[in-house]
Amino acid sequence: MMEQLPNLTQLLKQLQRVPYVASKNIYRVAHHFLSMKPEQMELFCKVLQEAHAAIAKCDICCTWKEQAGSCPFCSSLKRDQGIICVVETWYDLLAIEKAGGFQGVYHVLGGALSPLEGIGPEELTVPALVKRITPECREIILACNQTPEGDATTAYVARALSEHSVSITRLARGLPVGASLEYMDKLTLHKALTERRMF
Amino acid sequence: MMEQLPNLTQLLKQLQRVPYVASKNIYRVAHHFLSMKPEQMELFCKVLQEAHAAIAKCDICCTWKEQAGSCPFCSSLKRDQGIICVVETWYDLLAIEKAGGFQGVYHVLGGALSPLEGIGPEELTVPALVKRITPECREIILACNQTPEGDATTAYVARALSEHSVSITRLARGLPVGASLEYMDKLTLHKALTERRMF
Repeated sequence: MMEQLPNLTQLLKQLQRVPYVASKNIYRVAHHFLSMKPEQMELFCKVLQEAHAAIAKCDICCTWKEQAGSCPFCSSLKRDQGIICVVETWYDLLAIEKAGGFQGVYHVLGGALSPLEGIGPEELTVPALVKRITPECREIILACNQTPEGDATTAYVARALSEHSVSITRLARGLPVGASLEYMDKLTLHKALTERRMF
Repeated sequence: MMEQLPNLTQLLKQLQRVPYVASKNIYRVAHHFLSMKPEQMELFCKVLQEAHAAIAKCDICCTWKEQAGSCPFCSSLKRDQGIICVVETWYDLLAIEKAGGFQGVYHVLGGALSPLEGIGPEELTVPALVKRITPECREIILACNQTPEGDATTAYVARALSEHSVSITRLARGLPVGASLEYMDKLTLHKALTERRMF
């Protein structure tokens, strides 16, 4: 039947490339788009194209920004430009911002080292990070995810920064708030014990 | 931070309306679109708009079609126009087509009765189905899903057809292929028993 629906076949092919849409739901997502009113469809494409044209990566920290020049963080006088928090992605940055309390600036690596997904050191924005190490830069916080890929990335970035005289820290590891020891996994308990702090 | 990204906010708002994209993944889907090359973005919007313009509902059976006139099923001389299989949605039709073996035609209701989702009888294409009952029409197979909504829809359609002299059937209920009695739910076992067939 699909050979009589070439436009639909093309649409399904495009939707398959969108991440986080399960392939078993592709037909339903296509149905949603086809059921749209013409003006809704026009608006959707307009918003998509305008966002694509208006949003660019900050030259300094590589996060998404819309304004001319550098991003709201890098151009802010209220943020401490001497503390750089290094995250894997833009949504990790948003998570830290939502948590509140951090007044420094960011650096978005653009992912984590992952040989399986074909992400090697050259895909990461480490050279741009190294360039940011000036005498004003006091501390670099490594805030990659606590995954094998994140750990490898942390190690790689730390090595790239090691020859510069800047203080390098990383996020604390241990029990999350609300945790019961009984239900905690072995590795987390082990980390919480070995990295215990003075009371 | 989002107030400095008006285009991105708009994009997120549009993506939130797409079904089957979990809200926790919205930022990642937005990231996918923003990371596209300009030509990829152009192609995506082109395909979406062309599909939307080219695809319409068949006047007879309400399934999606691209050709002029009625859909490949309704216009086919190879299909038995005397047997109509009534399904809730277009993807249910595709599932039956993929299973193979059915040589009749279809009728897409456009959903199932669901007071919670605001789908009432007037949203379904039952009047169009009633219009299709001609002397040539020998059988109508009700093939709604085996859900409370599907059952209510089946009952509603059956009542709407009851005054017409056409044979009405519904899909067999019972054990699915590969089932172990031990792991089967009570209702299915009950149906399989009460609707048992001669060996």
